[in-house]
Amino acid sequence: MPQTNRQVRLAVRPSGLPRLADWQFTNEAMPAPGPGEFVTKVSHLSIDPAMRGWMNAGASYVPPVDIGAVMRAGGIGRVTASHNDGFAVGDYVYGTFGVQEYAVSDGRGVLKLDLSLAEPTAYLGVLGMTGLTAYFGLLDTGRLKEGDTVVVSGAAGAVGSVAGQIAKIKGCRVIGIAGGQEKCRLVTEEFGLDAAIDYRLPHLRRTLRELAPGGVDVYFDNVGGEILDDVLTCLARGARIAICGAISQYNETQVRGPANYMMLLVAQASMTGFLVFDFASRYPEAMAELAGWYRAGRLVSRETLVTGSVEDFPETLLKLFEGANTGKLILALDG
Amino acid sequence: MPQTNRQVRLAVRPSGLPRLADWQFTNEAMPAPGPGEFVTKVSHLSIDPAMRGWMNAGASYVPPVDIGAVMRAGGIGRVTASHNDGFAVGDYVYGTFGVQEYAVSDGRGVLKLDLSLAEPTAYLGVLGMTGLTAYFGLLDTGRLKEGDTVVVSGAAGAVGSVAGQIAKIKGCRVIGIAGGQEKCRLVTEEFGLDAAIDYRLPHLRRTLRELAPGGVDVYFDNVGGEILDDVLTCLARGARIAICGAISQYNETQVRGPANYMMLLVAQASMTGFLVFDFASRYPEAMAELAGWYRAGRLVSRETLVTGSVEDFPETLLKLFEGANTGKLILALDG
Repeated sequence: MPQTNRQVRLAVRPSGLPRLADWQFTNEAMPAPGPGEFVTKVSHLSIDPAMRGWMNAGASYVPPVDIGAVMRAGGIGRVTASHNDGFAVGDYVYGTFGVQEYAVSDGRGVLKLDLSLAEPTAYLGVLGMTGLTAYFGLLDTGRLKEGDTVVVSGAAGAVGSVAGQIAKIKGCRVIGIAGGQEKCRLVTEEFGLDAAIDYRLPHLRRTLRELAPGGVDVYFDNVGGEILDDVLTCLARGARIAICGAISQYNETQVRGPANYMMLLVAQASMTGFLVFDFASRYPEAMAELAGWYRAGRLVSRETLVTGSVEDFPETLLKLFEGANTGKLILALDG
Repeated sequence: MPQTNRQVRLAVRPSGLPRLADWQFTNEAMPAPGPGEFVTKVSHLSIDPAMRGWMNAGASYVPPVDIGAVMRAGGIGRVTASHNDGFAVGDYVYGTFGVQEYAVSDGRGVLKLDLSLAEPTAYLGVLGMTGLTAYFGLLDTGRLKEGDTVVVSGAAGAVGSVAGQIAKIKGCRVIGIAGGQEKCRLVTEEFGLDAAIDYRLPHLRRTLRELAPGGVDVYFDNVGGEILDDVLTCLARGARIAICGAISQYNETQVRGPANYMMLLVAQASMTGFLVFDFASRYPEAMAELAGWYRAGRLVSRETLVTGSVEDFPETLLKLFEGANTGKLILALDG
């Protein structure tokens, strides 16, 4: 019986939350590496809010996933066959392998994992794009400095939980915003932030004003929507808002813009978008610093691991928009 | 018959466009200067979009005008009585004198006009807060540099017409957005911009893309609303948006936030608010440079002068929101 490669492809561009009918499940022959190529057996898929944007038509920072194409996804796995001198059978690697069991690659954009630093899944979280996004967004785009009052939304999520912890390491007072009491407990007790606000409770704005009477110096925003509008009313003079994401809006057919954006003028503040890819030349230095904090126990990695097959991807993706995960959401492929 | 001082006071905080009933007309005795004070007979009032914000309740960059107080306004005039050594009878001065015929001052925030540089009304326009706002917003907040593609909205208005001209002086390619063919003609022919877009015509976004195929490096925004959303889709990488105002939204009970703000992320762009007051320590250097350009004929001053009494203020203010003015809107007080 020949081995096969199960895949998930985009069938239809979704309107609102992706439905099962938006996906197509295919089963191809196991790929064989051509000259200079190697095959990776994917063990873990990174499940990210940005995926929702990749499913839309229209230009963005990356081209949309084509209809009929294997869904784009970051993942880790082990090399099972290789005609590439840089990658040997058995190597642990990270790459944009897609939602499939086996991926062929020529090595471009693929990273070998250093398992002496951390376990493989850490390379999807604190030591991967997740950690790098938090690092550069906070330190570069947010121009964080010691003593700042920092607010992070999605503070129990993948990027948010790392951003909050980095702000603490850098000597800031840090307030996390998350959904529900359990996540808020995690934010203060496990990630060590100074305070947490449950956005499901009323009076977020008033609570934030009480917790940050001098105003917010840096806001690291993962969610957009009403929370962004609330934080805009609490800015300190010269505040920096780093726009990392807007998960509250990704499934809306009509995006809500920040109606309070004129508070930028009142506070002489800025709102800046960033992409982790802009900092690619500095990944090594950032990873070294993140790894140092991680090994020293100063940076806690939290993962929500779902075990299943690639066919479980559509349902797992929805967990992000339900806020079902804490820390990094990962689909671990069994078998 | 004793001389009197006619005044316009805020009676009611308006909802939407200010109505005549929102104002109160009073007639007081002519004020006399106390020790250290002087009296100015106001000759010209600066009519500014920001006035609409001052009429709202709630904290902003300045306190709201109190109900029953004389409406705040910048103005120029001549000193008619003085017990202040710094200001002599006959001096031409600029100050926040309010919408009234005579104002008492102790000299704080009052500027003596140098009539060897320009005629008095220029100090409400290119050499006043208007010119300084354009100067600092473009050069500092917008971080303008030679060769940039610059877009200015409200390009036939007071601040916008100066901003567009400064961008030209600095060696940029400049596109102005204005309402109507006559204003667009002014933008290119009188202010010398490279192109003008009439926002009343359809397809602003497409036209902007054609005029700025490489994207917009600096957007100096006076209007907000739909035009801001359109420009957000045309940003060059690393673009800077300087938020000066949002005249399209000042009379809306529900402000429209920029729904396309996530394009900041795609373009790694920033949106920064500023107030001219933040740059107060640098007014002299900026005024010197503006005056130099003005005297050299490189900076054209355009004014829309309405002649009348302080009682004409309410109606004159509305002209701003009708887009009836080109350049600086000034109420010249007769008598």
